[in-house]
Amino acid sequence: MRKKLRQILGKRFLEAPEDLKAYSVDASPYNFLPEAVALPVNAEEIAEILRLAQQENFPVIPRGAGTATTGASLAPQGGLVLSLLRLNRIIEINQEDLVAVVEPGVFTGEFKRAVEELGLFYPPDPASYEFSTIGGNVACGAGGPKGLKYGTTKDYVLGLEAVTATGEIIFCGRRTMKGVVGYNLVHLFTGSEGTLGVITKLILKLIPKPPSQATIALWLESTEKAAQAFLEILKAGLFPSTAELLDDTTLSAVKNLLKKEIHPKAQALLLLEFDGAKKQVEEDLSEAQKTLSNFGMKLDIAVNKKERERLWQARRLISPALKKIAPGKLADDVVLPRSKLPEFLSFAKKIGEKYGLTVACFGHLGDGNIHVNILFEKEDESKAREARNEILNKVLASCGTISGEHGIGFTKKGFLPKELSPEVLLLMKKIKEVFDPQNILNPGKIF
Amino acid sequence: MRKKLRQILGKRFLEAPEDLKAYSVDASPYNFLPEAVALPVNAEEIAEILRLAQQENFPVIPRGAGTATTGASLAPQGGLVLSLLRLNRIIEINQEDLVAVVEPGVFTGEFKRAVEELGLFYPPDPASYEFSTIGGNVACGAGGPKGLKYGTTKDYVLGLEAVTATGEIIFCGRRTMKGVVGYNLVHLFTGSEGTLGVITKLILKLIPKPPSQATIALWLESTEKAAQAFLEILKAGLFPSTAELLDDTTLSAVKNLLKKEIHPKAQALLLLEFDGAKKQVEEDLSEAQKTLSNFGMKLDIAVNKKERERLWQARRLISPALKKIAPGKLADDVVLPRSKLPEFLSFAKKIGEKYGLTVACFGHLGDGNIHVNILFEKEDESKAREARNEILNKVLASCGTISGEHGIGFTKKGFLPKELSPEVLLLMKKIKEVFDPQNILNPGKIF
Repeated sequence: MRKKLRQILGKRFLEAPEDLKAYSVDASPYNFLPEAVALPVNAEEIAEILRLAQQENFPVIPRGAGTATTGASLAPQGGLVLSLLRLNRIIEINQEDLVAVVEPGVFTGEFKRAVEELGLFYPPDPASYEFSTIGGNVACGAGGPKGLKYGTTKDYVLGLEAVTATGEIIFCGRRTMKGVVGYNLVHLFTGSEGTLGVITKLILKLIPKPPSQATIALWLESTEKAAQAFLEILKAGLFPSTAELLDDTTLSAVKNLLKKEIHPKAQALLLLEFDGAKKQVEEDLSEAQKTLSNFGMKLDIAVNKKERERLWQARRLISPALKKIAPGKLADDVVLPRSKLPEFLSFAKKIGEKYGLTVACFGHLGDGNIHVNILFEKEDESKAREARNEILNKVLASCGTISGEHGIGFTKKGFLPKELSPEVLLLMKKIKEVFDPQNILNPGKIF
Repeated sequence: MRKKLRQILGKRFLEAPEDLKAYSVDASPYNFLPEAVALPVNAEEIAEILRLAQQENFPVIPRGAGTATTGASLAPQGGLVLSLLRLNRIIEINQEDLVAVVEPGVFTGEFKRAVEELGLFYPPDPASYEFSTIGGNVACGAGGPKGLKYGTTKDYVLGLEAVTATGEIIFCGRRTMKGVVGYNLVHLFTGSEGTLGVITKLILKLIPKPPSQATIALWLESTEKAAQAFLEILKAGLFPSTAELLDDTTLSAVKNLLKKEIHPKAQALLLLEFDGAKKQVEEDLSEAQKTLSNFGMKLDIAVNKKERERLWQARRLISPALKKIAPGKLADDVVLPRSKLPEFLSFAKKIGEKYGLTVACFGHLGDGNIHVNILFEKEDESKAREARNEILNKVLASCGTISGEHGIGFTKKGFLPKELSPEVLLLMKKIKEVFDPQNILNPGKIF
């Protein structure tokens, strides 16, 4: 097997332990050394590799930039990591068709900038966008703050080329805005975490860039009030592009890194963004101020880029700030119906108190997608797991879902039967068999 | 079999020929008398019926209001038509969650109005919306004029309950805005034309209702100019909610019904709609007028409802107007990348001239979704089929798709291998087998 892979890939086949190490980790707390790494440059090479994997029965783990938080791009069963980073061309950005054609290894930030230079907009903005790839975003169905108004990655995938486990290069979907010919395989691949095929080309939908943007930072007395304030915004018929929350725990963690910028007494921060035509944004801002006048301790508004960046600083520092609290972290990205948010946020706080653990809630309040981070010292791991279990049960009892944008990988497999019925799980497994009868593509992930 | 069905359904099992007749037609030119019709009232009855169908091996054809143009709800292989019209409750419209829960038999227009009364908006607006059901819209992945800005039906389906061919009631998807737990079965069901399961409940996403709307009617010298004018609108960064086209043939047909309202010399009509906050719409209108000043013979603007309705009259009369031209009609709903529209519209015209047939092009220019109607006398049917073939080949050669919102049913099955590769077709057939191993659900459709 190694000999044939060397023939296909030459120097782009890595076997040295020091080379493999870089591919043994992702953004989860786990690491597994793969047996080898392939750095193909096109779909044909990938097809050859997969045909070989099929014959010789070895696992193939597709990988973008390795930013998954769930172990989705790790090799817990060994096998060959297939890096897509060398398929990294922006092939086309078409201003008339409002369509882009890209390879999966393009970094999302690079793509977003290339599109914006032409006055267009690709909205999905996962927190990792500067260092994650567009292929990884599609494979995991990534979201981001702008999901509230603009939807997630899946809403921008029109068509894709993929290599199936049996080594065939197929094209699904289309280059057009609409299409209903046959089953929707595009959205089956999107979010399938590399278990159904290797994406080698993407046709993405673009929209015109909104000319104006503004940010509101609302400092509040409590997390519940932040959730209520956001519901009032929606009731007023306003539809922000973004509504991000930092709860009291998150806010005080950030305060340690960023003293001056944080309101000294606030227990929660709500960040709202509005975008659109200049006059629309002005109208939205004045309407939002009126609506929010009964909430909050202080309201800051920024319309220019520098000022907006300043208001966003607290949000951007959450990850490094939380890391300082405790070495252990169980991170979930649950989603709840918006009406259940105030109650859920209180519940998460109480669970923290019950187990004597720090539970920080933050993230995309706007679409109900809350990042719940349970932080713990090594000796408290089992308590943390119990606390997580209670929180996930609460989410499901509130008609929520256990993952809004990170996916399952192998770290959350155990929770799948909590959310999906045995019948649905069986259908999904049978679909997996259709695409990958020998289970060579990212085995042990999702299921 | 009939005895058991009578037991399950009582008087809601129809066998009399005069009853069956109503279920023998849809909006396609075909008709087939089913062997019987079931009028179940809930998912449990449907599960019982499907388990029986599985045992006794008879076809089951799910049916909404029978407005498919492709024969999707007909019974060409006989069997039992399963009407969903008695599952017709709007179960919930939740203003905080921006979510509605409905049964499939609700008429889309009724649902849209119920939602709008609460200040919310369900954008999908297939031409049939007053007399088609929401379940049928989802099953066929229906579109509509507002698809340009708001996407199609599939973009509003968050979750669904369905009965599988083996009689299990399953729930896929979620009630939340986001979710990436397991494979996306929701979008596999959406557009699958009743071949994978019977949808019995839908969780739909709503958005706030845009407070203001305005219509522009631009009368032009030629169809190509209309297509170019629309591309200029996009280049100016404007994003209308709707951009509908009537070409010269369509316009002159409508003129026969609606003399006074039609510009006497215009050869094409472009209808643009803008919506949003009041000031946003005002800004868009003034920007659009500037952009369109080099195009067109006359530009009408309407902001109040009555005036807007008047501008839309021509669009609404297309179907009855075209019916008067010739008794035969081959209708396709092709989609092209926007940049290919001017050339395609010229091509369709030339094909009409070549075969001496009337070819009318109209519809959703905005997302490239053109309705191409070839009108013919009985004796010209084979010529019409040849013309259609050339047009569909042109669409595919232009990176287009043969159906944007109507689907395949059985009238377009023959064209599927033109668009989909054998590998992709095989994957789709295997997915069908996963969900419906005995091929009892709407057999002979799509494939």
